Amino acid sequence: MSFGDLKISEKLVPKNYMSLGVAAQRSKQRAFKELLEERKWPEHGWPDEHIEELVHQVAGLDSNNFGHNVGMGEREARIACKLVARRHYNFGHGIGRSGDLLEAQPKAAGSTLLANLTNSLLQQLIQMLGIRSCRCCFLVPVATGMTLTLCFQSLRKSRPLAKYVLWSRIDQKSCFKAITAAGLQPIIIAGTLLPEEKALITNVAAFEQQLAQLDPAQILCLYTTTSCFAPRNSDDIVAIAKLAANAGVPHVINNAYGLQCSKLTHQLEQAQRVGRVDYFVQSTDKNLMVPVGGAIVASFDEQSLQQVASTYAGRASSSQTLDVFMTLLSLGRDGYLRLVSERKQNFLYLRERLQEFAATHGERVPDTKMNGISLALTLETLSAIGITSLGAMLHTRGVSGVRVVPMGVNKSIDGYEFANFGAHHEDYKQPYLTVAAALGVTRPEIDKFFTVLDRCWTEYKKMKATSLDLSSTK
Amino acid sequence: MSFGDLKISEKLVPKNYMSLGVAAQRSKQRAFKELLEERKWPEHGWPDEHIEELVHQVAGLDSNNFGHNVGMGEREARIACKLVARRHYNFGHGIGRSGDLLEAQPKAAGSTLLANLTNSLLQQLIQMLGIRSCRCCFLVPVATGMTLTLCFQSLRKSRPLAKYVLWSRIDQKSCFKAITAAGLQPIIIAGTLLPEEKALITNVAAFEQQLAQLDPAQILCLYTTTSCFAPRNSDDIVAIAKLAANAGVPHVINNAYGLQCSKLTHQLEQAQRVGRVDYFVQSTDKNLMVPVGGAIVASFDEQSLQQVASTYAGRASSSQTLDVFMTLLSLGRDGYLRLVSERKQNFLYLRERLQEFAATHGERVPDTKMNGISLALTLETLSAIGITSLGAMLHTRGVSGVRVVPMGVNKSIDGYEFANFGAHHEDYKQPYLTVAAALGVTRPEIDKFFTVLDRCWTEYKKMKATSLDLSSTK
Amino acid sequence: MSFGDLKISEKLVPKNYMSLGVAAQRSKQRAFKELLEERKWPEHGWPDEHIEELVHQVAGLDSNNFGHNVGMGEREARIACKLVARRHYNFGHGIGRSGDLLEAQPKAAGSTLLANLTNSLLQQLIQMLGIRSCRCCFLVPVATGMTLTLCFQSLRKSRPLAKYVLWSRIDQKSCFKAITAAGLQPIIIAGTLLPEEKALITNVAAFEQQLAQLDPAQILCLYTTTSCFAPRNSDDIVAIAKLAANAGVPHVINNAYGLQCSKLTHQLEQAQRVGRVDYFVQSTDKNLMVPVGGAIVASFDEQSLQQVASTYAGRASSSQTLDVFMTLLSLGRDGYLRLVSERKQNFLYLRERLQEFAATHGERVPDTKMNGISLALTLETLSAIGITSLGAMLHTRGVSGVRVVPMGVNKSIDGYEFANFGAHHEDYKQPYLTVAAALGVTRPEIDKFFTVLDRCWTEYKKMKATSLDLSSTK
Amino acid sequence: MSFGDLKISEKLVPKNYMSLGVAAQRSKQRAFKELLEERKWPEHGWPDEHIEELVHQVAGLDSNNFGHNVGMGEREARIACKLVARRHYNFGHGIGRSGDLLEAQPKAAGSTLLANLTNSLLQQLIQMLGIRSCRCCFLVPVATGMTLTLCFQSLRKSRPLAKYVLWSRIDQKSCFKAITAAGLQPIIIAGTLLPEEKALITNVAAFEQQLAQLDPAQILCLYTTTSCFAPRNSDDIVAIAKLAANAGVPHVINNAYGLQCSKLTHQLEQAQRVGRVDYFVQSTDKNLMVPVGGAIVASFDEQSLQQVASTYAGRASSSQTLDVFMTLLSLGRDGYLRLVSERKQNFLYLRERLQEFAATHGERVPDTKMNGISLALTLETLSAIGITSLGAMLHTRGVSGVRVVPMGVNKSIDGYEFANFGAHHEDYKQPYLTVAAALGVTRPEIDKFFTVLDRCWTEYKKMKATSLDLSSTK
Repeated sequence: MSFGDLKISEKLVPKNYMSLGVAAQRSKQRAFKELLEERKWPEHGWPDEHIEELVHQVAGLDSNNFGHNVGMGEREARIACKLVARRHYNFGHGIGRSGDLLEAQPKAAGSTLLANLTNSLLQQLIQMLGIRSCRCCFLVPVATGMTLTLCFQSLRKSRPLAKYVLWSRIDQKSCFKAITAAGLQPIIIAGTLLPEEKALITNVAAFEQQLAQLDPAQILCLYTTTSCFAPRNSDDIVAIAKLAANAGVPHVINNAYGLQCSKLTHQLEQAQRVGRVDYFVQSTDKNLMVPVGGAIVASFDEQSLQQVASTYAGRASSSQTLDVFMTLLSLGRDGYLRLVSERKQNFLYLRERLQEFAATHGERVPDTKMNGISLALTLETLSAIGITSLGAMLHTRGVSGVRVVPMGVNKSIDGYEFANFGAHHEDYKQPYLTVAAALGVTRPEIDKFFTVLDRCWTEYKKMKATSLDLSSTK
Repeated sequence: MSFGDLKISEKLVPKNYMSLGVAAQRSKQRAFKELLEERKWPEHGWPDEHIEELVHQVAGLDSNNFGHNVGMGEREARIACKLVARRHYNFGHGIGRSGDLLEAQPKAAGSTLLANLTNSLLQQLIQMLGIRSCRCCFLVPVATGMTLTLCFQSLRKSRPLAKYVLWSRIDQKSCFKAITAAGLQPIIIAGTLLPEEKALITNVAAFEQQLAQLDPAQILCLYTTTSCFAPRNSDDIVAIAKLAANAGVPHVINNAYGLQCSKLTHQLEQAQRVGRVDYFVQSTDKNLMVPVGGAIVASFDEQSLQQVASTYAGRASSSQTLDVFMTLLSLGRDGYLRLVSERKQNFLYLRERLQEFAATHGERVPDTKMNGISLALTLETLSAIGITSLGAMLHTRGVSGVRVVPMGVNKSIDGYEFANFGAHHEDYKQPYLTVAAALGVTRPEIDKFFTVLDRCWTEYKKMKATSLDLSSTK
Repeated sequence: MSFGDLKISEKLVPKNYMSLGVAAQRSKQRAFKELLEERKWPEHGWPDEHIEELVHQVAGLDSNNFGHNVGMGEREARIACKLVARRHYNFGHGIGRSGDLLEAQPKAAGSTLLANLTNSLLQQLIQMLGIRSCRCCFLVPVATGMTLTLCFQSLRKSRPLAKYVLWSRIDQKSCFKAITAAGLQPIIIAGTLLPEEKALITNVAAFEQQLAQLDPAQILCLYTTTSCFAPRNSDDIVAIAKLAANAGVPHVINNAYGLQCSKLTHQLEQAQRVGRVDYFVQSTDKNLMVPVGGAIVASFDEQSLQQVASTYAGRASSSQTLDVFMTLLSLGRDGYLRLVSERKQNFLYLRERLQEFAATHGERVPDTKMNGISLALTLETLSAIGITSLGAMLHTRGVSGVRVVPMGVNKSIDGYEFANFGAHHEDYKQPYLTVAAALGVTRPEIDKFFTVLDRCWTEYKKMKATSLDLSSTK
Repeated sequence: MSFGDLKISEKLVPKNYMSLGVAAQRSKQRAFKELLEERKWPEHGWPDEHIEELVHQVAGLDSNNFGHNVGMGEREARIACKLVARRHYNFGHGIGRSGDLLEAQPKAAGSTLLANLTNSLLQQLIQMLGIRSCRCCFLVPVATGMTLTLCFQSLRKSRPLAKYVLWSRIDQKSCFKAITAAGLQPIIIAGTLLPEEKALITNVAAFEQQLAQLDPAQILCLYTTTSCFAPRNSDDIVAIAKLAANAGVPHVINNAYGLQCSKLTHQLEQAQRVGRVDYFVQSTDKNLMVPVGGAIVASFDEQSLQQVASTYAGRASSSQTLDVFMTLLSLGRDGYLRLVSERKQNFLYLRERLQEFAATHGERVPDTKMNGISLALTLETLSAIGITSLGAMLHTRGVSGVRVVPMGVNKSIDGYEFANFGAHHEDYKQPYLTVAAALGVTRPEIDKFFTVLDRCWTEYKKMKATSLDLSSTK
């Protein structure tokens, strides 16, 4: 509705008083138009009211929101609980159709529009962040692990003989389980340990060797990871991409929380330029600060991506799409860039303070140049037995997300053995902790972290001293 | 907070005026306690305010909602957009962990509690609806098709040689794609056409034959469907369950929208009693009137179900859980039973009116005794060419969900050919339309449907007559 | 924004899928247009989503909601707390200006429109309910008592010598205090007690007598009340209106909750036809089921009403206006009429059951023909001492709103003495209780009331018997 | 509900994961307890979720929110429209009773608590801002003008002969109409014009003279104003308070938006210390950034204030109370102080820039030391004819709140004549504009204002030059 088109009686409101309001409405409507017609991510964030208005308008295009819809099918998007309807802005039909996650729904023009527009904005996001060659992407309403599984399932369709995934080891279960969930066999390639830096990098030679030994047709893909916990570095995706290109084998990259880090996005662009990248997958919660549950699968080739969409069996939730759509409008391009730049500053600040702390306590911060998000701190001067209780101490005092990694834990996952699990490498020999400067962290949080760490450090030492005393007097 | 425990000054409110309010609060708190301690689905629906209060309280147990949380991890459930946070009641951590969809999250006691409690309520729902032996179930935040894929992937772990799925044909893409998405090979078993009834039933003998011919170790499972479009009937899951038991082969049932129909739930209970059922999967949107995007996988054996959960790679959205939780509290046991009973009445009414319509127009309603939701109407007296335009006519007039099925459409899906796709059988020879009486349909909708159908019927005939005239005069 | 006017790419959504959504949007926009251009109260209630959309659009016309407003005044409707802004849909400017409650605000076209449109809808409501000659009305964001004070203050401007208000006694404090708050002197005219009916009616002769005795210029107005607690009847406003007309003295009617009762609205129309009515005032909470805090002042003459508006010093809250606006749209004409007709049915049911109860217990229901909302029940057979504890008993058991009126209470208000306060007349000699069938009461509530009443009645008798026993044995 | 008191099964969530959540809940509950038991305004603002939780809990104490309330009265706070109920958090009963605005309601313990607690917090606010002797205050749900009327009506009860109000002229209608609305006669005392400063101050001598001439019993009160548009200064309330004390005549102060300015609050405290102040009234919207519609009446004597409350006829809206309550919790003491200090900085910045602008354009900023909010700029160098169009120009360009005051406008209000209305004094001879630095204004707004002003200034001059040309060529 446009007030400018209505003949509103002077009895309701004088014409000249209306004029400014009409102008303000027009400027809002221009913004709507630009978004819907040109599919352009707005430069500046929108106020909440405009976002909600647009979302409501779009939801009104779905048949379950028509005044007098007669629903004679088995699925008519009726919503029993008003609170549920409200929190979904009356979207009920989900996205996709039984054949394809990207297919339009005849009953749900609004949901269809929402999904496609969000995917279009996401592509602009990815390009803005440095991956300029990205041709297309779409939001999958399952998290990163399952989305990687989906990519593998999709690749299998065109590589019917393939059963192996060559995987650069990273000790996060879901990365690994993404392979077994698809019914494929991982070939685990341990990283290379740099003794000086106390850091891990990709063992490119080992990949090469495996490629030489195996029948390429039996290899589904090479599978690397960018964002990860220090002291592991991002995989050398550029080198692996070259191998993939040469061998004619697909290459899938787990870029879980890598969008927020320009170091990683530039590597991605570079990998594509000089080698082969079939899919790269990133989490929506970690990169866009929405609730857990979605991932973006992206590609440099539209056809390939379409295959992933058509592998997905059936319709899917539009809830994640809605979260991402609203968040992108709320931030705007400049708002997102501000977040990214603040994160970078905070990372530098965290590193500096961590190095100071290490220096004071006779520890080290492993030198992980290719990790722009996570940092490790060695725990050599602390008693190694029961070291994980240091993590519990921090958690109890309100610090979440610190991982204390003990040594010598062996773990079996889906029948595969991992020696020294947690440390990404069987030969990493000292315990450490990791912290991250992720999107949204604030400087006061970092400051408070060090206050608490300091307190816990002292307490832990004292506790151990006491228990040693106790045991020595026994 | 309990007002009864506070010493509130008489200057704020006289004690005797408070007492009734305190009593009312106590009764609400008793309801909360009963739900949380005994995990009992309330008999009567709760008012919106109580639901929201509980949900907020539970969300307050997650670390991202602690006043002074310091988040030093890579995933701290920060939510950038206030509107998004609000619509998720500040839940951000999702459910599950990287290893398992049912694992508890240290950072998110609230999300964990929400997920487990919802699963517990869902089990009570399934049992109340007649599947009394159901031992456990859980909500998967992907829709039915993908959940079936997940079941197949899970079965594969204990049946490493299996590659075939014996599937009773049903012409819904996502049912079929659930198999191929898992990288398995379907063996398609066409139903038996009953000429008298003009209906389709399961070809049990053909299943038997396949079981005899194939190596059981190569068979992943038998895969049947209950709820479906008429004139297909529900599969004879009791007979197939017996075959499965005898052959020692798993049996997975797609019970997509079957929970709402007691005929089907009783069959399910019976199938388990006399045979083998490993998993049965149902949609949350169709059975619980929530937005699309979730499914319930259930089993008669806790161990088996646990395997499905641990197959899921990574964390997942808690949005679907929240929808289901709120809906179950909003309806209460009696509210849900009322919906189910109204649906049944509406189904009988729809059938009666459809039979009248058929009688008037020289058509038939195929006799599908084992289909308590969907009904078909033959379209023999109408011109078959361009018959799908009848569906478009209805849709344009506000009737959604009617499927008009033409004959002779052949379709290829993932490399498999389906003759006469849409009709579930290559020999079904006349076009028909289907309508359903699903949960939430109302009598006025049914009445309006017949008004519109009548109008479109006439119009279609007239249109065809005209075009025939035109062609005859050519 | 109109989707029909946008060129939305087929990449976002296919054109034919959009068309139904566009049609649905158009029908909503027609409804908006009709409301805003023709100021017509919709026949049927609107869905919540449409109401909120319109309210947001209208709020967007106020300057505080313009994107780049620069506020250099002392009052710019900035809202500090987001929750407050949200609950007011970002309306902040209130209504009226310093000179006049009905004046338009240059900064707030939206608030102005909202206020005027609401007043227009209210006039249609009043006319629909039978007061067809009503020329205009407006919502005052203070409750009935203060609105009556405002009417008196307004009348005083044109009657500078007036100091008396001739008032037909009703024992509700705010009715009386409306006079003294304006600094005027009440002349209290007791009603006439009908011994047979045990009811009270207006003492018209006493009014006549006072008019004869006093200088008309010193009389500000005659002041009557329609809706009231039984056994008082509505005042004979037709007779008093005739006296007012003959004497050339204004007549103000307190119609607090009388709009919901056609008996009273027809009297009002009649009073105007044959006599003089200057203002009639009704509560918004009681007649429209909104939170307490507003009243509607109405008149048969536009000029007179304008004077009331211009008496109000300053701007006022628009919160009440918003409540009424949303409620009127939510109900629609037919929704409101349904409420009114249900109330009438419930009144008849309550009377019938009360008469049965009275018959059973040897009591009476006073015969109050001119009271269509409240009913009394004598309490002659119960011990009169401590009779109010019967009310407390009911309240404790969840029954609110029953008044138990004891005899012989004398009260002084603002220096005026009321003998037998609460009973409206000094000679009413037996205690009684009152109950009402007000808008929104339900039949199950009435049934439960009688269950509780019966239990309390027995308990009270038993308690009194015990205490008598005790005292007799002393 | 306290999670710590519940026995929650480990099946729902592991105990150790719960413990942090329980601790977080406990800290929230401590905050609730402190507020409710000690009635202490929190030092730091609360998150939205806590505010809403508390508000919902308090609303749950009102009988309309009891699960099985049976409402048999004529006013049971039923709310017809769900949206309305939601926006009021289900509060429906309003505040006060028919006799008194501060009386507790038996049916509404929650509303009663809300009102009294809010008044208690407001008193702490007033004291914190420097008026330490303030003994009590309460929120009146009508704006400043009507609240002043209420004070006058209240004073009249104890001064039955009084008919005059001695008023220091200020050209804002509602200040003046507050007198006439109460049926009283203003005696208008023009200020003193300081030619050097081009500013206005109180004419104390004229007050003294009037007090000497009139019978004190006929004077209701002296009536002064603090916050006002420059070039008027705040009245010399200290001097007038002394006169009031000496003459034994009440003194009422309109402190409309004066709470935000420490200069004025200190004067108020001082006035009370050395003289007499009966009531001082301030707007909630201007001082607390809530929507228009409430005022705070405060006093140094509890008894006096009680009289105002008991003058109010009937129940009143609790909507304003809710806004203020939520805002105070949202800001906290430190949040409010931050706003106040920012405002002061912005005032100084605005003055500095205005003085620069004046210097550049040959104008002056009148020297108004006793006005810490509003500033004037003379418009001597511009053509005086049609000068108000300069204001319209600014408004059209998005600057609201600037008043352009032309000379020589005469106005009659309620029969009283004001020469040179708008300028507060008949002898003020040059046009000027006023701007304010009110609570919430931002520095970018001020900067943008000057950009726009500069542009409009040039344009206005050009326009006038052109029209002069045109007229000279005629």
